[in-house]
Amino acid sequence: MSDAPDPPRRLELTTLMTPDMTNFSGKVHGGALLKLLDEVAYSCAARYSGHYVVTLLLDDAIFRAPVLVGELVTFKACVNHVGRTSLDVGIRVIAANHRTRVERHVMSCFFVMVALDDDGKPTEVPRFVPETAEDLRRWKQSERRRALRLAARQQA
Amino acid sequence: MSDAPDPPRRLELTTLMTPDMTNFSGKVHGGALLKLLDEVAYSCAARYSGHYVVTLLLDDAIFRAPVLVGELVTFKACVNHVGRTSLDVGIRVIAANHRTRVERHVMSCFFVMVALDDDGKPTEVPRFVPETAEDLRRWKQSERRRALRLAARQQA
Amino acid sequence: MSDAPDPPRRLELTTLMTPDMTNFSGKVHGGALLKLLDEVAYSCAARYSGHYVVTLLLDDAIFRAPVLVGELVTFKACVNHVGRTSLDVGIRVIAANHRTRVERHVMSCFFVMVALDDDGKPTEVPRFVPETAEDLRRWKQSERRRALRLAARQQA
Amino acid sequence: MSDAPDPPRRLELTTLMTPDMTNFSGKVHGGALLKLLDEVAYSCAARYSGHYVVTLLLDDAIFRAPVLVGELVTFKACVNHVGRTSLDVGIRVIAANHRTRVERHVMSCFFVMVALDDDGKPTEVPRFVPETAEDLRRWKQSERRRALRLAARQQA
Amino acid sequence: MSDAPDPPRRLELTTLMTPDMTNFSGKVHGGALLKLLDEVAYSCAARYSGHYVVTLLLDDAIFRAPVLVGELVTFKACVNHVGRTSLDVGIRVIAANHRTRVERHVMSCFFVMVALDDDGKPTEVPRFVPETAEDLRRWKQSERRRALRLAARQQA
Amino acid sequence: MSDAPDPPRRLELTTLMTPDMTNFSGKVHGGALLKLLDEVAYSCAARYSGHYVVTLLLDDAIFRAPVLVGELVTFKACVNHVGRTSLDVGIRVIAANHRTRVERHVMSCFFVMVALDDDGKPTEVPRFVPETAEDLRRWKQSERRRALRLAARQQA
Repeated sequence: MSDAPDPPRRLELTTLMTPDMTNFSGKVHGGALLKLLDEVAYSCAARYSGHYVVTLLLDDAIFRAPVLVGELVTFKACVNHVGRTSLDVGIRVIAANHRTRVERHVMSCFFVMVALDDDGKPTEVPRFVPETAEDLRRWKQSERRRALRLAARQQA
Repeated sequence: MSDAPDPPRRLELTTLMTPDMTNFSGKVHGGALLKLLDEVAYSCAARYSGHYVVTLLLDDAIFRAPVLVGELVTFKACVNHVGRTSLDVGIRVIAANHRTRVERHVMSCFFVMVALDDDGKPTEVPRFVPETAEDLRRWKQSERRRALRLAARQQA
Repeated sequence: MSDAPDPPRRLELTTLMTPDMTNFSGKVHGGALLKLLDEVAYSCAARYSGHYVVTLLLDDAIFRAPVLVGELVTFKACVNHVGRTSLDVGIRVIAANHRTRVERHVMSCFFVMVALDDDGKPTEVPRFVPETAEDLRRWKQSERRRALRLAARQQA
Repeated sequence: MSDAPDPPRRLELTTLMTPDMTNFSGKVHGGALLKLLDEVAYSCAARYSGHYVVTLLLDDAIFRAPVLVGELVTFKACVNHVGRTSLDVGIRVIAANHRTRVERHVMSCFFVMVALDDDGKPTEVPRFVPETAEDLRRWKQSERRRALRLAARQQA
Repeated sequence: MSDAPDPPRRLELTTLMTPDMTNFSGKVHGGALLKLLDEVAYSCAARYSGHYVVTLLLDDAIFRAPVLVGELVTFKACVNHVGRTSLDVGIRVIAANHRTRVERHVMSCFFVMVALDDDGKPTEVPRFVPETAEDLRRWKQSERRRALRLAARQQA
Repeated sequence: MSDAPDPPRRLELTTLMTPDMTNFSGKVHGGALLKLLDEVAYSCAARYSGHYVVTLLLDDAIFRAPVLVGELVTFKACVNHVGRTSLDVGIRVIAANHRTRVERHVMSCFFVMVALDDDGKPTEVPRFVPETAEDLRRWKQSERRRALRLAARQQA
């Protein structure tokens, strides 16, 4: 292992929910959030790997509570697991009201991204060893999700 | 069972991939597709149920092949399963090149939507009995996905 | 005439009317529909001809009834006539309400498109012989529209 | 006739063609221009009539020359004819290159708009008497277009 | 001084405020106006200089009164001062209501733009001599703004 | 002074520069950044004050270096000064390249915002006492900017 610092696994993006993200009921529509989530997963995985990345899979995106126009939304992304050329990114979404400053956990999801070299071929990404208990929990959760997806498809 | 015709479970939307959907490599970016998928799931579930619906969950969205700007993309959506107030919508995405007219299966995913009444409360949706072998296969697949999601979370 | 199958003359695109298409009175504004119509005409003519196409003319675009946000709108396009390098595309627009599933004919219009080769020069398009009574009616209608446009300009 | 000044029949809008208006060949796509034309027709007819107006018809929109991203485009609109509740608006589109400052006539078209009162019912618009030879030419051209459209539909 | 006509220093752009420019209170949000102002400054300086230009500085952008969706907004831009490679552009923004046709001065600001050659290097712009009293007032005002900005930064 | 915690004066927003923000030279155009800056100023001032806020003034927005599509941009905003109903917000913009992770200070600017109550009238904002040397430097700088703006206008 070199002396170079580990690449950053965590990324936080915060953005304001603007009126153009409204759905038919006056709340932020799921599609607008999904579009932002994809940008966050891209940013997190590209920064960690130092490569251009593409989305392979989006899994278990759960909308827990509505998000309102005018709220500040923070996307907390983390590289939870890496394969040879793939990266598992988990994202937790927090919405905050300006006036009350109360925060709500409104969404979470899991992306699998693949790193590509300049010719568009999958390319190796930096490894990391899960060290904290939390890191380890997430690493194992990623492996379990992968196994379950495999199982779901074989039975299909 | 009444004599009224069953509500339509299938919906096809076709749209042109325009340059504003481009990502950094000149292909249609995942976020643009996810935004369209959410609209398709909404349309399919709202038409079937006759109610306003919101997205509860997006599962197993797999990007199988890149989509190019200028291609016609068809989203084939189907209500695969219903609970009391929820609807499982599967979507298969086909991209076609104008010149060659060759079609590629580029993506698929599964949404769970919830129907809401005018006060924003979950409300009952029409039932259906899976009749063909294909209907039955999809119904069971929905139930299995649900069980696996439950399992994945309990272990987490 | 070769044994190759005729290129497809008909195309249906269906899309959801989203809140960003709203005009000042809360209905879908004409400009948003015109933008979509141009995409539909492009898609229909490019698929039929196998070439890149550009818009030469839009004629007799009649807005028969307002379209509401949240409705599903289907554009039924057909190549009605071809010249050596030009294609006449007629489009009929149908809007449907989710709840009532009642459909309304909200608009129709006629485009003339020109096929271009890779150097941007007009290029020949596949011929077709109108066979059904309906095909023949549309072919003649296209020719009559062309004659009337010519007459209108000569008098101007 | 009152002493009040006549309402303004002419309106010029100028706008910059930005990269988000690009089509697949790097030029401004027809749909983007059609969307702007509808805004211009709305603005011209609403200002003249002092009422909210909606688009009834777009006729003979001819794309004479491509428009490039980065060009300044001027829309010269004029109320050419009025009926009891309708207004005929002609628009001529001029594109200018920054460097050469050469101007090209790139497009023209004709809109028919209807004025609505606050209940959404058609409402009377101010009359005007064509006075100059140019005014008279346009007035007659509008009437001839209307007759030709009628003829085209009766034969259809 | 050559016999060639002076390049045009003034530019007027007029555009309709559409619903997608709305902020949370139903008025046109400042960000939408700032985006348009940047386009106007670009257009005015690029046309005057015959070069590609970039924004160096935006100064003293004062929002005097709210702008409403549905209003026609006119941006009156003028090159007030030129350095060797820079251009000072002042913009005055006028909003007009369709019905009343009353105009309000809603905003003004000052841009400094830099002209670039094809290699992206700053390049010389045409000189002009302020001739009218108004031209001279604006020229001196530009110089004074520059001095004050310098003073503000040195003290900082 | 009450025991309630001081409202938060600092806010960081991070966002990905997407291809729709491109100008004619392939870089992020000034207008797209100005639109985002206005959102950041709004978010920072609304969160601090607990009120809806509107933009009164944007001052000394200096574009120091171009921003590229694909970069992560962080807006570091801080309430530097408050009057009875107004808030001065300074914003510093940092762009970072994914691969090199090198950060560049690309822009800075100063906003004056006004807090409004539910009737749209200016309303009082929480006071704060600058305590650190940095807080004090910013407070004084805000006051100096205000004096210079006043001077610039009186001379104009």
